[in-house]
Amino acid sequence: MTVADLTERELVARIQQQLAPPPSWLTVGIGDDAAVVENERNRVEVLTVDALIDGVHFDRRFTPPTAIGHRALAVNLSDLAAMGATPRLALLSLALPATLTCEEFDGVISGIATEAMAHRLTVAGGNLTRTPGPLTIDITAIGTAKRRGVLTRSGARPGDLIYVSGAIGAAAAGLDMLRTGAATPSEACVFRYLRPSARVRLGQMLGRNRAASACIDLSDGLADGVSRIADASGVGMTVDADALPIEPEARRWFEDQGLDPVVAALGGGDDYELLFTVRPRQRGRLRAAFQQGGVPLTKIGVCTPDTRCVLRTAAGDVPFPSGFSHFR
Amino acid sequence: MTVADLTERELVARIQQQLAPPPSWLTVGIGDDAAVVENERNRVEVLTVDALIDGVHFDRRFTPPTAIGHRALAVNLSDLAAMGATPRLALLSLALPATLTCEEFDGVISGIATEAMAHRLTVAGGNLTRTPGPLTIDITAIGTAKRRGVLTRSGARPGDLIYVSGAIGAAAAGLDMLRTGAATPSEACVFRYLRPSARVRLGQMLGRNRAASACIDLSDGLADGVSRIADASGVGMTVDADALPIEPEARRWFEDQGLDPVVAALGGGDDYELLFTVRPRQRGRLRAAFQQGGVPLTKIGVCTPDTRCVLRTAAGDVPFPSGFSHFR
Repeated sequence: MTVADLTERELVARIQQQLAPPPSWLTVGIGDDAAVVENERNRVEVLTVDALIDGVHFDRRFTPPTAIGHRALAVNLSDLAAMGATPRLALLSLALPATLTCEEFDGVISGIATEAMAHRLTVAGGNLTRTPGPLTIDITAIGTAKRRGVLTRSGARPGDLIYVSGAIGAAAAGLDMLRTGAATPSEACVFRYLRPSARVRLGQMLGRNRAASACIDLSDGLADGVSRIADASGVGMTVDADALPIEPEARRWFEDQGLDPVVAALGGGDDYELLFTVRPRQRGRLRAAFQQGGVPLTKIGVCTPDTRCVLRTAAGDVPFPSGFSHFR
Repeated sequence: MTVADLTERELVARIQQQLAPPPSWLTVGIGDDAAVVENERNRVEVLTVDALIDGVHFDRRFTPPTAIGHRALAVNLSDLAAMGATPRLALLSLALPATLTCEEFDGVISGIATEAMAHRLTVAGGNLTRTPGPLTIDITAIGTAKRRGVLTRSGARPGDLIYVSGAIGAAAAGLDMLRTGAATPSEACVFRYLRPSARVRLGQMLGRNRAASACIDLSDGLADGVSRIADASGVGMTVDADALPIEPEARRWFEDQGLDPVVAALGGGDDYELLFTVRPRQRGRLRAAFQQGGVPLTKIGVCTPDTRCVLRTAAGDVPFPSGFSHFR
């Protein structure tokens, strides 16, 4: 049975079955022309939208439906995390090909619903349509933050230290392993690609105590993140290649493939770690973020007054390798 | 030149060129991980999302790019109108096929930007991605309303009068004319299909003075709207076929095609008029909505205590023809 055998109402009912009961601030939920929500007082709203498309951002041939759903929401949660926001609600817009089985549909929804509950996020509404094209999952996520707790890309100053959370390169290596059908894929790498952890708690901590001066999430890789913070803040960045927290199993994989693990890890997207800058005298504030953020933090470089981004290696300074782009 | 020749940043720059300057309440706009907005005090938020897909909701072969953009935003504005909300902001998520020319891209954005300015709506952010599938325009629109001014589908009671704004059938006839390459298409019908007017002002008026007890927009046709209000409110509806404000040029077209114009007009989607119910003693309040809503209002029937929806014709009562569905 495919989604083409069901009416829109039946599909909506299947979604609602998997969702947590709506909170009291959701005055009008799924089933009307629009959702109605009460605002949170003294908070600003943080809004983001991201689409995941079969064949571009995932591949149904080797990505289980629950992982597709998980990733579709996680990439949005990661954007909220990068702004220091607390997730609140999401709208799901799903374009379904007629070939999608009901089991796959339920799996995608389960992945979204599970990730939503883990972050206490309410699915407030959405839209379903058929498509002659690939499965497309478009999610709008809204969070809230205190006005002064919002993190942007533009606050870095020369002298600020550069940090990254967790490890990089794992998701890119995991995707590579899935794509090429690796005989003995690394569980850690594959899991990181299929089930990225949005660093929501860390982002909240960095925003709340103003530990970070600028922040971005690594959806398109660390090289891309470095250049975007540098551009937005009008600073340069010098990153120490030896300091990069490259996932050991990813490093091994890249080396086995004849790739430079540093270049591969810098260019690889889908890590969804946070890259952020910290004023040297605010380093003490990082402790709280470190203790409650639930993820290791690594200092990888420093912001500079010129606007060049360079990678410091044993062989000398080199310009930064460029990041992943969906377009040219 | 197609969108595949441009970087994401270049495409974003092309969008920004066409947008109005951001308002002061948009603290962080396009270009960061997410948008940040200040809430409006003492208002609830009304949120909706709708996708338009080439080959499903429009056809690039006979829909000019500016009309595609206009419709993509108008369908969302219509959902806000049906809730009595004032449009505030939108997020655009665009999935672009490599074949889309830059001229077409600019045209779509122009259609969105023009419609946004007409309704004082701010494009606060969004997402761009390529797609191996059809052009997909996913828009999340957010409006605000006073808590007591929100209209839903569920407030109709037996005895309430049923009204519809404007005329029906025109958009369906216009689409038919475009599809079949009619020799002398009706300008009124084609225009209504390509450039639907979301009844934002009327929806606001109906909500503000509590003239309407229930409301829905006619995205999927009047028959669909009738059954959805009836379902949500737990009432029946009797609609007088002779009273239906069918666009005269659409009626002529349907008759020329050998179709029953009433059935065709009831089933035809894309009208984006408002269907609403009014308590008999609140009819006086309709005057303000009528005077300021800028569109004729027609009484077409009455809500009944049973839960059947029937069409009253000269030949007797018949069950309601069913509406348009994107799914089964």
